[in-house]
Amino acid sequence: MCAREGRHKPIIGITLGDPAGIGPEVALKAVRDPKLLAVVRPVLIGPRAVVEHYAPGLGLTKRLAFVESLPEVLTTARIQVVDTGPLALEVIPFGQVHRECGRAALEAIRRGVALARERQIDALVTAPIHKKSAQLAGMVGAGHTEFLAHLCGVEEVRLMLVGPRLRIIHVSAHVSLREALDLIKRHRIVQTIELGVQVVRRLGIERPRVAVAGLNPHASDSGLFGREEEREIAPAVTTAASRGYEAHGPLPPDTVFYRATQGEFDLVVAMYHDQGHIAAKTLGFEDAVNVTAGLPIIRTSVDHGTAFDLVGQDRASPRNMKRAILLAGQLSRC
Amino acid sequence: MCAREGRHKPIIGITLGDPAGIGPEVALKAVRDPKLLAVVRPVLIGPRAVVEHYAPGLGLTKRLAFVESLPEVLTTARIQVVDTGPLALEVIPFGQVHRECGRAALEAIRRGVALARERQIDALVTAPIHKKSAQLAGMVGAGHTEFLAHLCGVEEVRLMLVGPRLRIIHVSAHVSLREALDLIKRHRIVQTIELGVQVVRRLGIERPRVAVAGLNPHASDSGLFGREEEREIAPAVTTAASRGYEAHGPLPPDTVFYRATQGEFDLVVAMYHDQGHIAAKTLGFEDAVNVTAGLPIIRTSVDHGTAFDLVGQDRASPRNMKRAILLAGQLSRC
Repeated sequence: MCAREGRHKPIIGITLGDPAGIGPEVALKAVRDPKLLAVVRPVLIGPRAVVEHYAPGLGLTKRLAFVESLPEVLTTARIQVVDTGPLALEVIPFGQVHRECGRAALEAIRRGVALARERQIDALVTAPIHKKSAQLAGMVGAGHTEFLAHLCGVEEVRLMLVGPRLRIIHVSAHVSLREALDLIKRHRIVQTIELGVQVVRRLGIERPRVAVAGLNPHASDSGLFGREEEREIAPAVTTAASRGYEAHGPLPPDTVFYRATQGEFDLVVAMYHDQGHIAAKTLGFEDAVNVTAGLPIIRTSVDHGTAFDLVGQDRASPRNMKRAILLAGQLSRC
Repeated sequence: MCAREGRHKPIIGITLGDPAGIGPEVALKAVRDPKLLAVVRPVLIGPRAVVEHYAPGLGLTKRLAFVESLPEVLTTARIQVVDTGPLALEVIPFGQVHRECGRAALEAIRRGVALARERQIDALVTAPIHKKSAQLAGMVGAGHTEFLAHLCGVEEVRLMLVGPRLRIIHVSAHVSLREALDLIKRHRIVQTIELGVQVVRRLGIERPRVAVAGLNPHASDSGLFGREEEREIAPAVTTAASRGYEAHGPLPPDTVFYRATQGEFDLVVAMYHDQGHIAAKTLGFEDAVNVTAGLPIIRTSVDHGTAFDLVGQDRASPRNMKRAILLAGQLSRC
């Protein structure tokens, strides 16, 4: 079901991220693509000033419509830009940490979440924020995703990577590897399987084949290297199966991703951040899109940062942003 | 320098591995390849009985010459098979664990190591053994590589994976991930860099560009997730640089392998087994060859097991074995 009845294209809100980073540039470049506009209706969310800064150079000036709130019916062919308030461009240090940029980035996220929760948009795509700028502006939580979870009032969210050949959900994300080991717990793994399956079902796969990776080399080789497979992971697979999921594992981590790329599985449950990220990023740096599972809204995100070193040179590639927008459209199931 | 003067082709000894596994089949299939025979001279090492079992079906009967020891001059066009002694084929359970098979596998390894140390062969390629069969036969050490280290009288060896687009050496291998964390020590990392560079230099790259991966997500993001980068890995990179190595890092683990595939680095130092193995195997299951760094002999190995479920069906692919033989030839620098 789409946010608004009678439409075929999902409405995708795109927060512009940190105004001093490459977020605005990649978002604006992405929404120029006719192929993208053929399948989704993008809505930009951020300060008017930064959009006006980039629009002329990208030939977009006449194709945008600035609004304070989204109209009931989106009839115009122009791309709506929900202005999230003033930003003193003259004090913004492009490519640097600044509290004002953090503030603007957070305001866009707040607005995006509100629009999604009010079902004025079908999904939210987020451009990158800079953690330090956001913290200077008082961001609650350890990062972008945690802030979104806070705004949505949920605690258990999981980082997914969705690429053309692989879908991966992670039992833990931005913690040290040592802490990640302590999070290998049966209930947490079961929850990760369930949250991942919810997302994959939105892509039209009703009964996904789920591969659950082991933690240790060769999935411990029957207990020779580590006990987590026996104590936590295998019981989690059993529990998931008893709840009706088609879950397999624990499988050797070094081959499970290859097997998934060959079509054997629809989803891989990775035991820690790099287990999944190494697989996804080694296959293709720009192809994996970040999805947050467990939120009451659909949220995808580019899988790159603010890239301060690239700002203002017209060099930032919108490829990952386009993929994030298209995936948000697919997940909207309009 | 080759083992024998006046030759152009390196002599590559190939142990047949566990007779009940796919080792003999993939070794015999590999040495049928004219392209391989154009660049190396293979010598098979194992029980005559198992070679005679497979040779007729593979059309090799007239192309083999069984010897008890390698002649001084290899003039014949036939492929030499160094017979490592009797094996009662009628009691061998193909595709199963058996002490006799373990004994035969170990004997071939002992013979191969002796031939390499006497410089009768330039390099040793090993087909897979079965750990349980080998242990029943009294194997010293935790596995194939440890047994080789024992025979060669060395302690510090490292597992390398060499593929068409990636060369990776691992700080640790077949230990639990929790134990691997305890092995992230400056001196061990420096030693790993040095052993890896020795191997890469044999491939003709005199001054390899070495990428040292971090341990934690985003290489800890300046200490946000874990301290190992600051305490152990960065100091190891500094030490290696002070010894003249071109070492970079610690670099984010999820992108360092992609960067290496794009030509930025000649060698990646992985902090644990799966960090490197996930990258190599996700790119191509059959393409990565195992190299043991730190031995006084050149040793490559297939990166697959005995595959008991495939034995005797003529279905095992020799692709990885061929790659292991060709790489051994390159490392021989003849």
